[in-house]
Amino acid sequence: MYQNWSQDSPEERQQKIAALYYDKLKHAGRGHEAVKYVRGLRKGHHDQSELQYSVIIEGLSVLEAALKYQVDFKYLFVCPADIYSPLAQLVLAQLTDKAHHSFLVSPKTFTLISAKDNSNGLLAVSGIDKAKLKELKSRSPELIIILDGLETPGNIGTIIRSADAVNADGIIITNRRARLFTPLMVRSSRGACFKFPIVESSVSEASSFLLSNDYEIILADTAAPINYYRHSYSRPTALIMGSERFGISIEWYTYPHTKVSIPMYGDCDSLNVSIAATVLLYEMRLQKEKLLNRA
Amino acid sequence: MYQNWSQDSPEERQQKIAALYYDKLKHAGRGHEAVKYVRGLRKGHHDQSELQYSVIIEGLSVLEAALKYQVDFKYLFVCPADIYSPLAQLVLAQLTDKAHHSFLVSPKTFTLISAKDNSNGLLAVSGIDKAKLKELKSRSPELIIILDGLETPGNIGTIIRSADAVNADGIIITNRRARLFTPLMVRSSRGACFKFPIVESSVSEASSFLLSNDYEIILADTAAPINYYRHSYSRPTALIMGSERFGISIEWYTYPHTKVSIPMYGDCDSLNVSIAATVLLYEMRLQKEKLLNRA
Repeated sequence: MYQNWSQDSPEERQQKIAALYYDKLKHAGRGHEAVKYVRGLRKGHHDQSELQYSVIIEGLSVLEAALKYQVDFKYLFVCPADIYSPLAQLVLAQLTDKAHHSFLVSPKTFTLISAKDNSNGLLAVSGIDKAKLKELKSRSPELIIILDGLETPGNIGTIIRSADAVNADGIIITNRRARLFTPLMVRSSRGACFKFPIVESSVSEASSFLLSNDYEIILADTAAPINYYRHSYSRPTALIMGSERFGISIEWYTYPHTKVSIPMYGDCDSLNVSIAATVLLYEMRLQKEKLLNRA
Repeated sequence: MYQNWSQDSPEERQQKIAALYYDKLKHAGRGHEAVKYVRGLRKGHHDQSELQYSVIIEGLSVLEAALKYQVDFKYLFVCPADIYSPLAQLVLAQLTDKAHHSFLVSPKTFTLISAKDNSNGLLAVSGIDKAKLKELKSRSPELIIILDGLETPGNIGTIIRSADAVNADGIIITNRRARLFTPLMVRSSRGACFKFPIVESSVSEASSFLLSNDYEIILADTAAPINYYRHSYSRPTALIMGSERFGISIEWYTYPHTKVSIPMYGDCDSLNVSIAATVLLYEMRLQKEKLLNRA
């Protein structure tokens, strides 16, 4: 259905797209409100509202993920000069269908808002709802991950990617240190960040929710005497990961919990947090699927 | 023994250090041969020799690791204005003792060679020997990791950090795509890259070495019918990881091997390669330690 336009000149692509989507695309120059909004977002302006994260999404695979998870697209920016692959055209068609406002921008204007080398001429701004704890309850309660005080959006995104791999039910962020839904977090998550309820919460509200819903709280603690593979994860499980620098905040330790560690056989005293999280998550998932015999 | 010099002015630190190490530190300005060498290294000049990697090392913890693993320090650059913590002074003392040539540089010159925000005024250039396959044989042969065609120095470094955690015996790089011993690789490995023999090899030489030393070759393949936890890793194990983009090169498949996969329960079709490697490595290590009951 879609042909490859790589032989066309940028001007020819511009004409085709402007014609195909004449009723959807409005021209926007660098002074346009929406363009200025994105540039402000990049600099950290437009403080997150209480209800939504404003998220810049670029890259075909994360845009596809965002479409799959039915994200709300407020703005779409289209730079036809860079759109030529069949996949880019397909994503363009889907996005113009969904976006509240779609803008046609020049290559110059696009470079002002794009931060990625190979954006294929597409950039979206979405509003991602800030989830509430009660939304977690409505899913089959089995495996929730709590990220306490993590500092690196890349690590958070990678853990979310792993959360998808083990079919976890949601993510809770306590003692948030890192900005959420940055381009790096979105990219590291491979778009899985749009799939899960991601809840920001205080420790007391999160623990209250977890304990009243029969979750067993598991703290990943390098000093724990029990190794992770020795514990039986038969109850609904809430895995708490702390930052590499500070560990898990002391408040989590004041609630009923079990500590588990990953044995370290070499000189380093810890693993990268997203790596440690995934080692634990796989043990938990495989046990819950009854695929492992454990002593 | 070492006091904190944070209350001293940069000039006072300069005086103290110049006095303490008057016999070791030579002044070097931006035109100095060694300074120009480091700047060239940063730009990718000074193509790696056949025998050694030239490695820029900065950051106190990786310098400590390099000292621990008795790396050969060719050059040390010292910017006294930035040295104040007791740890930095200790590392400075150890480095000036080991380095072939130590240079005292001004803050301006230091910014020309440093790429890190908090370098604590210390930067070293080391020569890391390129290991040979036969060096792997001399260690207790149990668990070797082969990285085939990986593209990201950060992922390579993170896998090396995990290799330390499971006490692996060495790393083989085949079909090298990424630059090795970049600052990001060193940092991601937390200095464990100085601990292991890291061997660059062709697939045919590596496979020949492995098979003649009774290693079982395990290919991490997302399409493999066997899940990783179902295999018994009782023989010496060589785990091959491929790049996220291209997988393992076809040549590895032409040698006797077993393919294993990590089950994916969500929408993503793969895990980050350093994450996948660590999940597999822990299963292998725990089995070899006879800590797991398997069906």
